[in-house]
This record gives sequence, C-alpha cells and structure tokens, in this order.
Amino acid sequence: MRVDGRENNQLREISFDLNFIKHPEGSVLISVGDTKVICNASVEDRVPPFMRGEGKGWITAEYSMLPRATEQRTIRESSKGKVTGRTMEIQRLIGRSLRSVVNLEELGERTIWIDCDVIQADGGTRTASISGAYVAMVIALSKLVNQKKVKSLPITDFLAATSVGIIDTHGEILDLNYIEDSKAAVDMNIIMTGSGQLVEVQGTGEEATFSRSQLNELLDLGEHGIKEIVSIQKEVLNGLGIEVKISEGGK
Amino acid sequence: MRVDGRENNQLREISFDLNFIKHPEGSVLISVGDTKVICNASVEDRVPPFMRGEGKGWITAEYSMLPRATEQRTIRESSKGKVTGRTMEIQRLIGRSLRSVVNLEELGERTIWIDCDVIQADGGTRTASISGAYVAMVIALSKLVNQKKVKSLPITDFLAATSVGIIDTHGEILDLNYIEDSKAAVDMNIIMTGSGQLVEVQGTGEEATFSRSQLNELLDLGEHGIKEIVSIQKEVLNGLGIEVKISEGGK
Amino acid sequence: MRVDGRENNQLREISFDLNFIKHPEGSVLISVGDTKVICNASVEDRVPPFMRGEGKGWITAEYSMLPRATEQRTIRESSKGKVTGRTMEIQRLIGRSLRSVVNLEELGERTIWIDCDVIQADGGTRTASISGAYVAMVIALSKLVNQKKVKSLPITDFLAATSVGIIDTHGEILDLNYIEDSKAAVDMNIIMTGSGQLVEVQGTGEEATFSRSQLNELLDLGEHGIKEIVSIQKEVLNGLGIEVKISEGGK
Amino acid sequence: MRVDGRENNQLREISFDLNFIKHPEGSVLISVGDTKVICNASVEDRVPPFMRGEGKGWITAEYSMLPRATEQRTIRESSKGKVTGRTMEIQRLIGRSLRSVVNLEELGERTIWIDCDVIQADGGTRTASISGAYVAMVIALSKLVNQKKVKSLPITDFLAATSVGIIDTHGEILDLNYIEDSKAAVDMNIIMTGSGQLVEVQGTGEEATFSRSQLNELLDLGEHGIKEIVSIQKEVLNGLGIEVKISEGGK
Amino acid sequence: MRVDGRENNQLREISFDLNFIKHPEGSVLISVGDTKVICNASVEDRVPPFMRGEGKGWITAEYSMLPRATEQRTIRESSKGKVTGRTMEIQRLIGRSLRSVVNLEELGERTIWIDCDVIQADGGTRTASISGAYVAMVIALSKLVNQKKVKSLPITDFLAATSVGIIDTHGEILDLNYIEDSKAAVDMNIIMTGSGQLVEVQGTGEEATFSRSQLNELLDLGEHGIKEIVSIQKEVLNGLGIEVKISEGGK
Amino acid sequence: MRVDGRENNQLREISFDLNFIKHPEGSVLISVGDTKVICNASVEDRVPPFMRGEGKGWITAEYSMLPRATEQRTIRESSKGKVTGRTMEIQRLIGRSLRSVVNLEELGERTIWIDCDVIQADGGTRTASISGAYVAMVIALSKLVNQKKVKSLPITDFLAATSVGIIDTHGEILDLNYIEDSKAAVDMNIIMTGSGQLVEVQGTGEEATFSRSQLNELLDLGEHGIKEIVSIQKEVLNGLGIEVKISEGGK
Repeated sequence: MRVDGRENNQLREISFDLNFIKHPEGSVLISVGDTKVICNASVEDRVPPFMRGEGKGWITAEYSMLPRATEQRTIRESSKGKVTGRTMEIQRLIGRSLRSVVNLEELGERTIWIDCDVIQADGGTRTASISGAYVAMVIALSKLVNQKKVKSLPITDFLAATSVGIIDTHGEILDLNYIEDSKAAVDMNIIMTGSGQLVEVQGTGEEATFSRSQLNELLDLGEHGIKEIVSIQKEVLNGLGIEVKISEGGK
Repeated sequence: MRVDGRENNQLREISFDLNFIKHPEGSVLISVGDTKVICNASVEDRVPPFMRGEGKGWITAEYSMLPRATEQRTIRESSKGKVTGRTMEIQRLIGRSLRSVVNLEELGERTIWIDCDVIQADGGTRTASISGAYVAMVIALSKLVNQKKVKSLPITDFLAATSVGIIDTHGEILDLNYIEDSKAAVDMNIIMTGSGQLVEVQGTGEEATFSRSQLNELLDLGEHGIKEIVSIQKEVLNGLGIEVKISEGGK
Repeated sequence: MRVDGRENNQLREISFDLNFIKHPEGSVLISVGDTKVICNASVEDRVPPFMRGEGKGWITAEYSMLPRATEQRTIRESSKGKVTGRTMEIQRLIGRSLRSVVNLEELGERTIWIDCDVIQADGGTRTASISGAYVAMVIALSKLVNQKKVKSLPITDFLAATSVGIIDTHGEILDLNYIEDSKAAVDMNIIMTGSGQLVEVQGTGEEATFSRSQLNELLDLGEHGIKEIVSIQKEVLNGLGIEVKISEGGK
Repeated sequence: MRVDGRENNQLREISFDLNFIKHPEGSVLISVGDTKVICNASVEDRVPPFMRGEGKGWITAEYSMLPRATEQRTIRESSKGKVTGRTMEIQRLIGRSLRSVVNLEELGERTIWIDCDVIQADGGTRTASISGAYVAMVIALSKLVNQKKVKSLPITDFLAATSVGIIDTHGEILDLNYIEDSKAAVDMNIIMTGSGQLVEVQGTGEEATFSRSQLNELLDLGEHGIKEIVSIQKEVLNGLGIEVKISEGGK
Repeated sequence: MRVDGRENNQLREISFDLNFIKHPEGSVLISVGDTKVICNASVEDRVPPFMRGEGKGWITAEYSMLPRATEQRTIRESSKGKVTGRTMEIQRLIGRSLRSVVNLEELGERTIWIDCDVIQADGGTRTASISGAYVAMVIALSKLVNQKKVKSLPITDFLAATSVGIIDTHGEILDLNYIEDSKAAVDMNIIMTGSGQLVEVQGTGEEATFSRSQLNELLDLGEHGIKEIVSIQKEVLNGLGIEVKISEGGK
Repeated sequence: MRVDGRENNQLREISFDLNFIKHPEGSVLISVGDTKVICNASVEDRVPPFMRGEGKGWITAEYSMLPRATEQRTIRESSKGKVTGRTMEIQRLIGRSLRSVVNLEELGERTIWIDCDVIQADGGTRTASISGAYVAMVIALSKLVNQKKVKSLPITDFLAATSVGIIDTHGEILDLNYIEDSKAAVDMNIIMTGSGQLVEVQGTGEEATFSRSQLNELLDLGEHGIKEIVSIQKEVLNGLGIEVKISEGGK
C-alpha cells in the first residue's frame, strides 16, 4: 500500500469549492488531497495586440504559489523581480491545454485570464490547476452565454489532468503526492479530454529512463484517473445547470 | 445609515479561521466583512545579515494581492518584475507594527516571516492584515515556547488595526469598505495595542484637509473599534490555550 | 539643551536659495540646518495616460539622495536597478501633500514634476523636501500665470512640513536632526496648510508606543514649527512679487 | 512527398562539425538540414552552491538564438533584460536530458556548462541542440579522462533527440522543418538513449488532440530517426578515438 | 618578432565568408586571425519613434559574445538581465561609425539592424565587427537597390577599423591579438574611410600615458592597416558585382 | 565671435567651490561656464573582490545628471531601472583617467569612490567631471596622508580634461557649450596630464569625418586649454596647502 493508504491506481479525494472568490467571473477552489489551488477566470473584452482584428478569442494563464504553500518557505517571484523557468513552463502548459477545448472563433475577441494560485501544495499542483481552471473557465463562459454575448458555450469537450509516475517500491502509480513525487524515477503529466483524446503528454526521467511498455502502463493509469475527474467535473457543472456538449470529432 | 446598513461606529463582522494552511507555524484566514487575507507566520532560525551576532530576533512582512482579489483584475507584481510603492509601504508598516509588541531579545536570533496574501479585497486590507498577522505570529511564537526554544511568549501586548475616515455624507466613520474608501475625503489607519497605546497613526487628506478636532474624533472611533478587535483576538487565542500577558508600561 | 544647543520647540535655521538651477520653471535650494535639498519644478503640457481628457492637472514627485549626502556612502538606486521602498514612500507623500493645496481643475491638463534631490542630509529630508517643493511649485505656477496659460495662481493655501519626535532624554522635540532622529522612540511627520489644517500625520513608534496626550503635545509642537516655516515661505514668495491667496474653507 | 522532397520517415541531412570553436573543452556545430547550432561544452571545477560537498557533478545548459537566426529578426533577450519562458523551458530540457546519461558521481564535483547557440533556425532547434550537445559533452569528458581527472568516461549511453508531428496533408512525419512545424496539428519531441530507452516525451496538440494509436505511430517514427542519429554520433566519436560503453540496465 | 611571428606593421590574415547565414539581407563571417564575428544586416521598413516623419533612415548595431568565445566562459548578458557598459560602448561605436558613410536621406525611412556576434575572440573584436559589418551592410543595401526600393547605393565611402597599441617590448604595433592586448600600455582603435579620412579615434592609456609623437606613429600604423583591409573589402564586394562609389568630399 | 562672445581658443570661466558637501572626504563643485558638477570623493577601506590580496588600491567613478540639469526634463535612471549606455561610457572614462595618475600600490587596499553629479548642464559635463573629480580625489588622498594611513600623496601628475570640436561656421574651437556641441561636425574629448602627456583621446565624427591635419589642430587647442585648467587646479590645491609632485617620466 502507498504512503497514504491508496491503491496504485487510486486518485486522492477531489473537491471543487465553487464561487470561492466573489469578484471573478468564474472562481473555484480545487482540492486534490492536500493540494489546494484557487482557480479564477476573468473575462476581458479584448485580445492581446498580436491577435487583434482576427475575430478570435484567447485563453492565457498565470500560476503562482504562496510562499508558504510549501513545507519550506519559498521566496516570492515579485521579490526576486522575475518569474522562474518552472512557473513559465507551467503557465504555458495550462493556457495551451485549455485552448485545445475552446472554440476561439465562437468566443470572439475576448481574453479569458486564468489565475491559478496554489495556497497549499502536496504534489500535482500543475495538473490540479488544469482540472480546476477548466471548471472556472466554463463557469465564466456560461455567464457570457447568459449575457447573450456568446451564442452557445464555446467548449468542445471536457478537460482534466493528472500525474502518473514510477517509484521503485511500487512501480507505476496514479496521482503522486509530494513524498511520492520526490522519490519518483519517472514523472509524467497527462492531459486528456472527456472523450479520451490526448492533449498533452509530458514524461520525464530525470535520473532514469523508461521503456515503451512502461510508457503504455502509465498512459493507461492516467486515462483511468482522468475519466474519474471528468465525471466529477460533469456533476459539479450540472449542479450549476451547465451542460457541456461534446463536439463530434473534437475541435 | 451606511451603504451596508452599519452605524458610523460599527465594525464589519470579523472572524479568524485558524490553521488555514497546514505548513506554516502559524496560519490564519482573517475575514473583515468581504475582505479576506491569508496570514501565514514562518519561523526561520537566523536573522538577516545586518543583525547577526546581536542576539536579537527580527519580524519582517510581505504583502500581496491575488490578481482577482479586486473588482478589476490587476497585473501580478511578478509579471511586472517589480514590487509597487504601495506594496512596499504596506509591507514596511506591517513589519514595523508587529515589532512594537515583540520582545526581540527574548525571541533570540530568529526571523518571523509574515506573509499576508489578500485573496478577496473590500477595503481595509492593510489593517486586516495587521490584525490577522498578529494572531498568526502569536500562534507561531507559542509553538517555540512549547518546543522550549523560547522561555515564555516574547509578546508584550495585543495589537490590532482598523481604518477610520471622513465621508461627506456621513462624517467620521469606522472600518471603511471599498465603496466608502473610494469616496473618503480623509483616510486614516490606526494601529494600537491592547492597552490603548498608539503604535502608528497615518492620516491622509488626498483631496482635502482636516482639523485637530476631526483628528480627535477619528482617533476616538479607531480606539473604540480596536478594543473590539482585541477582545476577539483574546477569545480566539484563549480557545487555543494561549494567554498573552501585558507587560507593565509596554515594551 | 539639545545636542546643537536648540530649545525643544526650536526649528533649525531655514533658508530658500531661489533660482538655484537655471533650466527648471521653479528651482529652490532649501537648507534646514545641514539638510540641503534641491527642489526643482518642471511643467509638462500633458497629464499621465490615466487622467487624459478629464481637464484636470497632476502633480507628481520624485525624491533621491546623492550617494554621499549621508555620513556613509549609499549605493545609487540606478546601480541597484530599482527604487527602494523608502524612496517610493517619500515620493508618494510629497506628491500627495502638494496636490492637497493645488486646484487641479484650474491647472488644466498639465503635469508639474517635482524633483527633490538631497545633496546633504542631516535628518528631516522628506519634510524639508515638501517645504522647499512648495516654493518651487508656486514659482513655476506663477510663470504659467504670467504666460497667461492659467488665469490665476491655482493654489488654495500655503503648505509646509516638519518632523517632531520623542527622545528619552528630552521628551517631545521639534525638527529632529540626524543624531536626534536615530535616538527617537517616536517619530512623526506633520504636514499642514498655512491656515492650520492638517494634510498628513504620520506617527510611528518603531520600538515604542505613545499615548493620546503625547500625540497631542507632538501635534502642538509641529503646528508651532510649521507656522514659522510658512511665514518664511510667504516672505520669500513676496520678495518675488508672488502673493498666495487662501481659499475660504480650503480646497 | 514532403515540401523538401523527403519521405515521411526520413531525417534531414545531419552533420557534426567538430572543434568548431577553439576555446571550449568540447565544441560542435551540428547541422540538421538548415538548422545550425553551435554546441559548446565547458568544464568548471566546482558545482553550484546547492550541491557542494555531495561529491557529485552537475550538467547545466543554456540556449539562445542569434537575432537573425530566424526569418524575421527577433529582439535579443539581453536587450529585453530577461529570458523568455520558451528559452527557460528548452534550457531545462537540454540539461535534464543530458544528465540522464551521465554518471554524476563518477564526474566528481565538476560542472559541465552546455551552451547551445542557434545561428540558423529551420525547425527542431531544441532537438538538434540535444543531439549536438551530447557529442560536445562527450568530447569534453574524454579530455577529463585523458587528463586523468576522471577514471573512465562517466557516460552510460548514447543520447539523441528528434521531433515528430502530424500534419493534415501527410499524417505522421519525422524531423519537421520550420514550414512543417508551423502547420503541424500535433508536435512531439522525443529524446531516447542509444539502447532505445525513453528519456523524455513531450507531445502537444495546441489546436488539436491525438489518440493513443497516433501517439504510438509518432513514437515509432521517433525511435527510427533517433537510431540513425545515434549511429552517426557513434561514427563521429569513433573518428576521434572515443568509445562510449553502454551500461547494462542503463543508469 | 611578435608572439605570432608578425612584423610590427603587419595585419593578421583577414577573410570574409559571405552569405554565412541564409535569412539576413546581408551576412558575413569575418575572421581576423582567430577572431571570428558573424555580422548580419537586417532591413526593417521603419525607423525608431524619435525619427519618424523626417524622411531619413537609421543604422543601429548590437554586439554580443557567445559565452565561450573567450578562454574562460563568461556569463550571458541575458542571464544577468542587463547589458554591460562595455557592450553598450561597443554597440554605440559600431552604429555611429557605419552611419558616417551612409547617406541616410537616400536610404529613406528604413532601419538597418547590424548584429555582430563574436563566436571566437582573440583581440580586436570591436574593430573586426566594424570591418565585417560594413560589408554585410553594403550587401543588404545593394539588395534594396536591386529591388528598386533605393535608387543607388546610399554609401559615400568604404569603412574599416583596426587596433594599434604600444607594448613595452615592441613599441608601436598594428592589429593586436589577445595576448598583446592584455600587455599593452596604450590601446587605440582607429576607424577610417577608404579615402583616408578619420571617423573615430579612441586612444587610451589605462596604466600609462602617451606623447603626441607616439600618437602620430600609432595613427600612421592604423592608416597603413586600414588601407589593406579596405582593398580586401573592395575585392570581396566586386566579386559580388557591387561597386562602391566614393562621394567627392565625403559625406 | 562665438555665440557667447569667446575666441575659438578660449575656455569658459572655471571655478572650484571646495568642501561643497560636508560628509565626503573630498568635495568640490566645479563650474565650467553654466555646467555645474558636484564631485565627491569617498574613501572605502577595501577593494572590490576581484582585486583583494594584491596590495593595490582602486579608483572607481559614478556619474549621473539630475533630471532637470537639462533644458528638457530627462527620466531618472533609477526609475527606468537601468543605467544608460552613455552613463556607463562616461563612468568608465572618468575612472580610467583618474587611475592613470594614481600610484595604486602606494594607495594600498583602499577604494576611492568618485561621484560626479551634474546639477546643471551646458555641454562638456564629462570633461568638467574629470577636472573636478581630480581635485576632490587629491583632497581625499591628502587626508589619508594627514591621518598617516598613506606615506605621501600617491599622485604622479595633474590631470584635466576639455572638449574640442569643429563647427562649420567657426572651424576648430575649444570647450564647446551645449549649443555649439549640438552643431558640431566633429567632437573630441581630450584628457591630459600636467606634463602634457595624453591620457585619453576620443574623437568622433557622427555625421562627418576629419583629416589628420584637423586632428592635429584640435589636439593643439586641447593642450592649450588643459594647461590653463591645470594651473587653476594647482592654485586651488596650493590654497589648501596641498602640493602635487610630478613623478619623473610619469607613472
């Protein structure tokens, strides 16, 4: 059994605390075990300069951690005067993933700003951010529909993410917490749609390598976990009266 | 009556959500009406270079707002690559105020890092930060006492803060929310100890001036409000079994 | 008697060296004892982007010290690549204070840039900057009147500033020099108009607190000192043929 | 046929220009079609502060493009005063990949700095950087062996990288040039050892998603290409009298 | 004889590798002994804001070194987040020199960006950059003529640069390599036109001074070397069918 | 006659206001016509890291302009967050020039910080800075002699600087003011010792070139002006009882 008593293919407990902050158009506190991320979606009625006049919208994301989200206090990026490489990598990943299930033409010349602020970290903050940001974004978009600014929800599919990895003592496992993550020989983030299409696969062996068959086992585990997260997202959004229609053949 | 139905000398509802984040030595979510600030206190076993070898401790504070804590999204300071003047002014104020009720010699060569992260803003974020940070700091210090690293709580008094101001339609009022704050002709932050000693008075008339008698009325209102906040702090800390002893004659 | 032979309620010698630099529209070297600040006022025929089209003017201030204005050489902020929190706090204070006695509508869409450069420091540099900047600003504004760009001097009152404080050996004292400032338990900056209205009160007890009655004594001392500075300002401006009319009821 | 006449599973012409720059311990100009990257390896006799005293070495990488490596001139990162997110992501990827085939204990407390400077870009600059940096690094390490500073080549395997992708008109293709890359619906970078173990898999569908079977076809193509690159690396290193021994079971 | 066997008045071997990079409008790799600089010229169809509407063009230059162009690896300026004083001085020198032989009115509202990237350094990188950048710029300008965007080559003269200096053991010498440069008591950069007019003279005695007669000998040496470089430039450009006509009386 | 009535070979009026600021070890306000620069010399009892343990001292300089030293207000470099290329070029020039007449071994492991702050600019600020900084530096060094920290004045010669240039209407002229400087076709800064040795020659033709004979006339003019400045420096230093002994053969 794993350090917290889970099976290898078992997710941590997931919850979505809706309307967590009052100002944003969409606001969700996602908890994945002890990892807690505030995901806020803000609607801006214009797009960045490089996209103006194309009639398309844009989704962009920012990610940050409170200094004491971690076991040891980390220095604020604002104090350092620059954003680290890790933060930039995660921000680009979140934005890119969300854009893969949004119909940007239907969105029109608007930007959805996604802010993922980790207030408590216990592994898997980037994948939790994506699963939570998806829900915050859909809530914000559904307000645009209610305000008749957008005809119908410009969403083509569900989207969720999880981590998988290999640790010497357990083999392939799903949804690593911090202790597992720090021992993992191989670490992989998987982002999939509700229809089971891959959006992003990032597998890394820092001090190790992995075979094609191990890769396949990791992908199976990830697919299993993401299906479960998507079913919770569906339930949560339905509770708000929001229904996401899957486009045939995806985007 | 005021915009939210309060009397001129009435505080908004205040609550302290204890142990809000699991990692910090002290962690409090303070809510003052719709203003919500996560106040985390971290203990570090050394002091900044300019204080080494003096046998004294140090208290330092950082303050930040989530981009969507406000009605309109604000740009992250980490993206801008620098901390604004307003943030620096608030950080210096929080640190200075807390140090006025801590016996730094008894603390020993340790730094208490205070992180105040505003997740939702509705006026008075700097004074809420101080009232909340005080509680988080005392909890962190009491752990040092429990661990026998410090003999007794190196605290000389309670400490709380509130804002007062003058708006044309109501005269002098206590604990301004955002709407009131944006209409105020005079805006004052008052920080006091539990014994009623002043720690900091910052009164500003941006587009107006004020007389000595108006100043006195504002100070009376502030003193009234701070007494109430201190009594809540006392109750909350007692609930954790922590008792703050007031030094005769203050610090 | 104080370290430099003054009474507790006695200012240091103050002088205004007019037209110190030839290029600015208003230029004054203020000396307050050994504290010397070049105060230059520049007129720009436009306002910052956030104010355009409102038909109002703006006053903004920058403050700096030469590296060797101080006993020990300090590093230039340009070399560090950023402005310190202390500098930003002072810049905001100077600008805010000056705006409180300017009729920004009458000024029209113009910016007055105030540059306060401390060339020699001996305590009280921020209050000297304000008293000197007021004179430089009025000179620059009177040129706008002479050029018929502005109908009449858009000034509602005189404005001056001083520091007061409490030191253990002397109690409450007026206009602290550097030695006194470094020993003060309580430090307060007071900014007032010529009519005796308060514009800004900033009282701080870093390692100490203060009572309401001490606050009142400090305010009395400050009021006494500011009246004297204002009478010198009046004389100096009259010498240039400039008369400031006080608006009934202030701004 | 593809835009440059290649088959879907055909690499562009690859060459390694050895000892391209005279100062570095290892220096290679790798050309992959029209993509040209100077890969320099520098040996430093110490490790970064966070690793001191552990008896292990470190490999770190920096990546940059000349402003006119691209069709349109891009602004220098030194002029902008910061490194972009894309650059940081690539630098981290190169360093991480190289470390996966180096025995850091055998290297001892030394840092190998890898500098990949793209002088001409036509797609696949990050994968070309990795394939070229591997050769530069091995040359530098073999000098340490010749100087008896290291007992034997602290290398556990070959390492090479290539890109694969899906474009609507051709399906899955190997080693995308810039035109193909800008049309690709799915883009994947694959890094493998000479023994066929995966080191890193990064697959991204910006405006599209992909299925498990498409992923498998892409991995097959990548494996095919990397085998060919490794055989060229082997030949080139043998030409210098350097033989890389594969560790049983990898690192 | 000098360290590399040259006479005091002898240049190192110089070569121009044309069309070194495929994207830029003009691209040259200049080699002066072991000093190698990629000089790229890019044409942009607009001028910087401060020049708009004047009907004139602009020439601007950037200069950089690869980290391992030097014997010891140097830190990238992009990593440091700022450009050093030395780099800025060189960039300004290159741009200013090139502008002295370009007819900016005939160029029209266009900017020529010159990028000089030193890939291998052995002394004299700034003067090699100028001699190489001149050729790259002329090639780029001749394309504008071929495209009928500019009537005739807007060039008034040839331009080349070299260094001269004084070393104790040899007296005045021409074209210093790195070893000589590091021993030189006096170091001078001379930039001249093909007609023998001076464009820039920068003579420096860091730990020494020099007399008027020494200055004259250095100028003679420089003139001699520059004539030789200009004759190579002429040959190289003629090989491309480009002929530079000298304006009577210079610019 | 020139715009201000001078002959072509005539300097503007020069004065040295000694002990201008009270804190620095040496402080001079130099006025060259309407150009006014505060030159402060500070002694620090250590050298920069790269020089430690060599038993030698160091001279380093910083240069800045007040925002309104110029006709139009310029933005502070501290606000821009970086020092411009022009400033760095001047700082390096001042430091390098001063070092050419200081015996750094006799100085011992000390740094002399030179701060040149231009409070009013009318052309020639960098050469005025050098002539003024020399005097401030000698005063600071003579204090080290008086304190017996240094045996004798570690100065080998006098040092002064001036500008010369060519303007169409007047030909070669000495000591250009701002109006002349902005019209000059050729601009040259000359730095010489009291014995007439050259320390630095920087001649530039931005929009023009110049012949060897013009260069010679400019050097003659400069030598004439510098002799006059040196005689004033000598007088001023003698007035303080400081005598500079010229080393035979210079440094």
